[in-house]
Amino acid sequence: MRAASSPEEIRKSNLAVLLRHVHRDGPVSRATLAERMGLNRSTILALTADLAAAGLIREELPGQTGRAGRPSLVVRPESDRIYVVALDVGADRLAAARVGLGGSVLDQIETDRPRGTFDPDDVISTLAAMARGMIDKAARDGVCVGVGVAFCGMVREEDGVVRYGPNIGWVDVPFGASLTRELDLDLRVAVGNNANLGALAERERGVGAGLSDLIYLHGDVGIGGGIIMGGQLLGGEGGYAGEVGHMIVNRDGRACACGSRGCLEAEAGELGLIAAAGRTDPAGRAAVEAIVEAAARGDSTARDALHQVGDWLGYGVANLVNIFNPSMVVFGGVLREIYLASAAQVRSRVAVDGLLAVRERVKLRTSALGGDATLIGAAELAFTDVLTDPVQTLARISAGRR
Amino acid sequence: MRAASSPEEIRKSNLAVLLRHVHRDGPVSRATLAERMGLNRSTILALTADLAAAGLIREELPGQTGRAGRPSLVVRPESDRIYVVALDVGADRLAAARVGLGGSVLDQIETDRPRGTFDPDDVISTLAAMARGMIDKAARDGVCVGVGVAFCGMVREEDGVVRYGPNIGWVDVPFGASLTRELDLDLRVAVGNNANLGALAERERGVGAGLSDLIYLHGDVGIGGGIIMGGQLLGGEGGYAGEVGHMIVNRDGRACACGSRGCLEAEAGELGLIAAAGRTDPAGRAAVEAIVEAAARGDSTARDALHQVGDWLGYGVANLVNIFNPSMVVFGGVLREIYLASAAQVRSRVAVDGLLAVRERVKLRTSALGGDATLIGAAELAFTDVLTDPVQTLARISAGRR
Repeated sequence: MRAASSPEEIRKSNLAVLLRHVHRDGPVSRATLAERMGLNRSTILALTADLAAAGLIREELPGQTGRAGRPSLVVRPESDRIYVVALDVGADRLAAARVGLGGSVLDQIETDRPRGTFDPDDVISTLAAMARGMIDKAARDGVCVGVGVAFCGMVREEDGVVRYGPNIGWVDVPFGASLTRELDLDLRVAVGNNANLGALAERERGVGAGLSDLIYLHGDVGIGGGIIMGGQLLGGEGGYAGEVGHMIVNRDGRACACGSRGCLEAEAGELGLIAAAGRTDPAGRAAVEAIVEAAARGDSTARDALHQVGDWLGYGVANLVNIFNPSMVVFGGVLREIYLASAAQVRSRVAVDGLLAVRERVKLRTSALGGDATLIGAAELAFTDVLTDPVQTLARISAGRR
Repeated sequence: MRAASSPEEIRKSNLAVLLRHVHRDGPVSRATLAERMGLNRSTILALTADLAAAGLIREELPGQTGRAGRPSLVVRPESDRIYVVALDVGADRLAAARVGLGGSVLDQIETDRPRGTFDPDDVISTLAAMARGMIDKAARDGVCVGVGVAFCGMVREEDGVVRYGPNIGWVDVPFGASLTRELDLDLRVAVGNNANLGALAERERGVGAGLSDLIYLHGDVGIGGGIIMGGQLLGGEGGYAGEVGHMIVNRDGRACACGSRGCLEAEAGELGLIAAAGRTDPAGRAAVEAIVEAAARGDSTARDALHQVGDWLGYGVANLVNIFNPSMVVFGGVLREIYLASAAQVRSRVAVDGLLAVRERVKLRTSALGGDATLIGAAELAFTDVLTDPVQTLARISAGRR
């Protein structure tokens, strides 16, 4: 319940707020910043001067505006110089991107991997090699200000320990610390749950832009949930909230990797769909796409399977709508394809089982960022330090490089 | 993203923070307040002087402390003078209390009512009469600073419209506005969902004191949920979040008042228990208690019914634990009795179906405030204005009385 702030704290906070505006919204005039932040122009001038001196932004004359009078300078993020490395560990692929301040993807690579148990050391050395390759390709005056990883399981955020990665067989792996050591960049690698990061990405740069109450469902082998309520990511006591894939919807249902039966991900996820369609293909996006295409061609087994899976997905979504009263539910990862092919069932379940006051306003949408949502979320996570205390963070990193 | 505050805003905020400390924790020394608020003693002195002049607190010498030196004055809430009226609309009772600043219950009454459809006009005039009776009994220099109502259904908080009260048959009733008019106290009557208010009460003054991540489940005819995450009550887009009673746990289950089947409240609530026990008593707390007593005496039908209901309740709780990672789940209202009589089943479900990282830390507890949790929460709601802007609120109310 502290209320008072020192002038230095206020300045630090204003620098961070200004940089966040520029990072999220792109080039913006000083006049607009003054208006959005409720500060006068001379304060804005002092703040942009500090950020420019640190090399985080630059100021330019705008193009022709056709208006009379002295134009307000436009503030741009130094996207080519200030960047982060984002990594994504999915159940069947590893991906990496170099993302500039302002959110532009400067470089991106990925490697498919066979399903099953991933050896942590192997994953860590592969990710480190991918990251180093990208950093080596960056301009010589570039500054990597953070590394963020999206992981397909339960992560303890404060130290990056993977508590549980059911679909790749990890329990209590000190992933963040090992990757920090292996990369040796003088930067702590931040690790987050992939669905949480996907939710942040869709809220910052995707279909949920500006929404305060949003549920992002990410389909991989399992179903993860990232839940934003009142503008904040739902963490719970230990930061593990959002495991909606393990909401039991069918007491007598299919066995789940977690040891229970009838979990939402067992009934409505990739494995549930493949089983319902009576297929024996190896699990993965290709198998889901094959079923969706077969249904589109009129294959009745595939259609029935999608109908059944859509019904279970609908129960899950109706439950979440009743519990959370979100303004939007976003389907991402492979759940995007499953939802698109079974939207009628999902919507009809929500219409029947959602309470009027909550179902009347909720929008069901597919991810705008597609397969990149979790990776873009990892980049946002990596930008956290520089967006919290821009000047100090950059000074610390520069001192480390000398 | 505003950061700057004027001195006047800071002072207002400090007055509110100080009064909240005194309201929540009771009599406290100026020295302790200075420490808790991170302010110096002279600032505290100025703040307490303002609050004392407004008649909200008084300062007294403490009792003998046995310590040398000048003792720090103790700040006490003016509990007898500054009070709110709290009202509670349950499915089978109306209750009212007069609660002093600091949380002491000064007076309390309740009236049982038959189940079924309540006529809104009748409920409103009865509540108004109960409230007026209490206000008339208060001391002449007493000031009523707010009226709050806990309602057993979905409420639009900004205007107090009851969107849906399935168990008393209300849809879109302008309850808050009508009660405000009927009471004619120059105070807007604030209305909230009863489970939300129960959650607040348990967090402020009950078993969840000081917790940031807490789920309160309130059993009445139905099951309502009040969910506090990161210290904030979960509202969702329209403020209707928390309808966990309508999470479907059994697709082929019992019909629910909401029109669906197999909702948690239909399987694990009062009506589910009575049906499982094959009884025909009218629903209500007495019926639940009769089943619990029969089971305790060894009646196998009653035991089986509690076993079955506990299993469904366990599915619901396990799902909530996986979705929210709360540090505590609190069972209140008649769910307290149901939980106590079926705790083994509930706990065993959570042990089987909760993911390790979330189930290992969660505590399952019964309400410390018992039947009064929702009423005490209504009082906290009624104190909102005075705890947000103490001096202005009191000045406004005093001006209205002249």
